[in-house]
Amino acid sequence: MENFSEWFHNILEEANITDSRYPIKGMAIWMPYGFQIRKYTLELLKELLDKDNDEVLFPMLVPEKELAKEGIHVKGFEDEVYWVTKGGQKDLNEQLALRPTSETAIYPMYSLWIRSHIDLPIKYYQIANTFRYETKHTRPLIRVREITTFKEAHTAHATKKEADEQVEDYIKLYKEFFNDLGIPYLISKRPSWDTFPGADYTMAFDTIMPDGKTLQIGTVHNLGQTFAKTFDITFEDKDGEHKYVYQTCAGLSDRVVAAMIASHGDEKGLSLPSMVSPNHVTIIPILFKKGKEDVLNKCENIKEQLEAVGLRVNIDDRDIRPGKKFYDWELKGTPIKLELGPRDLENNITIAMRRDNLEKVEIDLDDLLADNILNLIAKYDKNLNSKSWAFLEDHVKFTADLNEVPKLIEDGYVVSFNWCGDDDCGKQIEEETGYDILGIYEELDGESGLKCIKDGEDAKYVALIAKTY
Amino acid sequence: MENFSEWFHNILEEANITDSRYPIKGMAIWMPYGFQIRKYTLELLKELLDKDNDEVLFPMLVPEKELAKEGIHVKGFEDEVYWVTKGGQKDLNEQLALRPTSETAIYPMYSLWIRSHIDLPIKYYQIANTFRYETKHTRPLIRVREITTFKEAHTAHATKKEADEQVEDYIKLYKEFFNDLGIPYLISKRPSWDTFPGADYTMAFDTIMPDGKTLQIGTVHNLGQTFAKTFDITFEDKDGEHKYVYQTCAGLSDRVVAAMIASHGDEKGLSLPSMVSPNHVTIIPILFKKGKEDVLNKCENIKEQLEAVGLRVNIDDRDIRPGKKFYDWELKGTPIKLELGPRDLENNITIAMRRDNLEKVEIDLDDLLADNILNLIAKYDKNLNSKSWAFLEDHVKFTADLNEVPKLIEDGYVVSFNWCGDDDCGKQIEEETGYDILGIYEELDGESGLKCIKDGEDAKYVALIAKTY
Repeated sequence: MENFSEWFHNILEEANITDSRYPIKGMAIWMPYGFQIRKYTLELLKELLDKDNDEVLFPMLVPEKELAKEGIHVKGFEDEVYWVTKGGQKDLNEQLALRPTSETAIYPMYSLWIRSHIDLPIKYYQIANTFRYETKHTRPLIRVREITTFKEAHTAHATKKEADEQVEDYIKLYKEFFNDLGIPYLISKRPSWDTFPGADYTMAFDTIMPDGKTLQIGTVHNLGQTFAKTFDITFEDKDGEHKYVYQTCAGLSDRVVAAMIASHGDEKGLSLPSMVSPNHVTIIPILFKKGKEDVLNKCENIKEQLEAVGLRVNIDDRDIRPGKKFYDWELKGTPIKLELGPRDLENNITIAMRRDNLEKVEIDLDDLLADNILNLIAKYDKNLNSKSWAFLEDHVKFTADLNEVPKLIEDGYVVSFNWCGDDDCGKQIEEETGYDILGIYEELDGESGLKCIKDGEDAKYVALIAKTY
Repeated sequence: MENFSEWFHNILEEANITDSRYPIKGMAIWMPYGFQIRKYTLELLKELLDKDNDEVLFPMLVPEKELAKEGIHVKGFEDEVYWVTKGGQKDLNEQLALRPTSETAIYPMYSLWIRSHIDLPIKYYQIANTFRYETKHTRPLIRVREITTFKEAHTAHATKKEADEQVEDYIKLYKEFFNDLGIPYLISKRPSWDTFPGADYTMAFDTIMPDGKTLQIGTVHNLGQTFAKTFDITFEDKDGEHKYVYQTCAGLSDRVVAAMIASHGDEKGLSLPSMVSPNHVTIIPILFKKGKEDVLNKCENIKEQLEAVGLRVNIDDRDIRPGKKFYDWELKGTPIKLELGPRDLENNITIAMRRDNLEKVEIDLDDLLADNILNLIAKYDKNLNSKSWAFLEDHVKFTADLNEVPKLIEDGYVVSFNWCGDDDCGKQIEEETGYDILGIYEELDGESGLKCIKDGEDAKYVALIAKTY
């Protein structure tokens, strides 16, 4: 697409995903179709999380006293916290923060709940709305002031080893989640200056948007014992000693939906991964006065057959011309459209059209209809996945020449380069190029002999730099 | 139970429903077990709503300008609105309300979305958190400052008739919902002074708690054209004229869970309606060193058999004595417990115990196990339902003597009485007795000859008066 930003803005409203005309900047409404996509996306996520985590829900407000306790953390958020200062006509005794994230809401309770090693590990998550008073340009689902769909998991463990393993587990879970949605990703360890405030280190998932800019779509933080010490989260270990817990947290947001829309969309509209599409199959009857009933009855019959194998199916029987219906469901990204007219009925066939490549296939109505459709959907999902991964792989380019970096990024690439790993050196690279280091993508063998792109020292890492959202 | 208030407070923490120790008064945490109950309750509700309504999600903040537009409405809420006045370190240009309810967030958008009669009706609902700066004594799930689970439906129609019918439809839906949960209710039309601010009239569902006090658990409001006029929600009708829409809204909250807990609980703990119980069946293996494996294998096998028919089943294989397990699952209200020890295994039986009446039945492990369990669960649900309805019916008493009202209410009754319907008369009744008129329960035939309990005028209604939460 020529202008991704404009395309994205338009598709959200045209496909009934969100409406940004709400009278507060950076806060939008989830419209019915968008809400369904969000719902199925959350179902998928919860299914993965519920295997090993418990869902809970914490209050939305955080007392100032708690938010302020962890100094590094609050510094990272103080410029973007919304404050409630009044209840009714009166000033409150203590101002209350709209949670920007919930560490400071949750960890005082962990301090109460955790007493002994048998209480560990704790792995809780919640899906909640959080708030950031963004001063930058806002953009629906991408940079917003109310994150309506914030998944945050918070764990506490008896040992450092378990916390390290938990980080790996969440990375694995996110991979599975993004793979199911066909969203390609680059995983990197954020540089120190871009680490979550209060964390030892941050692992991040970025995807590449059609305009070549990267979008952070998920993070996993190893919190070490920082918060444990601030909020006094201790346990009596088997040996009778009182110890601080080790913690991790991990987040996802509305951006997942943004990335999914961007990864698979085209000029005609959305292509939704079947797992989260409100309809897997949309049946479009071609109606004439004569034989109308028969065609509609057969559509109902097909719908029932497909629903029996677990598919979500709708029939578009609106009284408008079929061309408009095709247009609408291409816009909304139903994986498979089925066309059925009186002549098809006579010949006992239906025409199936895949949304991704718009290819048509004739399907015999008696010959394993459901199996054929399931098969088409599987091919469709696989193609979405491989197309989007191919796009990502085509858009990462290595260079050993620092001067080449800005040009490559302007051409739509994420640039990989060899780096010594020194903080000052990294900040200089950012300053000289004007772009952001995403983080460390790969560790290099100590014996590689490769040199840092900036200072010529021995390179320890392959790092990524990009224009970011 | 002797002291309901204390019982309720304790059961919430003991059964892992909510934790009220969060450092803001009136805001509590949904704990894992409680969250599951909430989740299944919402699934049931959504299933009913989704037949005829679309789910959406609006921003949590409402600009002061919009909230203030509808004068009567804002008067009803102004003392209990939380205000956000600061973003980061700066004062906001306009203060933003934490939604106490979302009419003023939603209706400005209805004004944009509705253009023509073909856009109507609109039936949207959302499940969201709302806020009330309560100055009264707070109580978890019953009177809170953050309502974490607020279901609000908002409709717009072309005609008054359709709006009136919508009110009836929502009442029907609520009846079905509460029936599924075995929560008994009294439906009444609230008196004018207790009508939702801005509504023409309010229909309310109240249940009777074990202490005889009533709890409002659902409301349906006929909004007429009040908000349509304030927010300029008009449409071009078939005749080409521009007209204001007619509106309704309907709400439910966390109180549904409170009512469910209260309706079915006893000294031993919860009895959860199967529809919302995290486990339908809890299997308790009786383990000795010898034959442990065999017993556990059989438990797994039973679990699989029951899950195959759609039941939610857990095995409590904790290394503690069986008595403690029985105690725990009676507290948590699993409908059916299955006990299986080595001797049962030899005899090829299991002992099933219903939570409601604690009756034990021996069940042959080969003889239609799943059918037998489903049958037991059906009887269990039916019994919860009839017991709670019997309690309600036993606790409504009619009197024609105003002096008798306070005594009856103190004895735990909701009192029904004949009423002329006059506002001043009604307020005098409230003042003299010190209790609240719930509303009109029944219309009387004009020829009944019955007289008003207070002023002796012709009675038009049977009304209800009670001590309320």
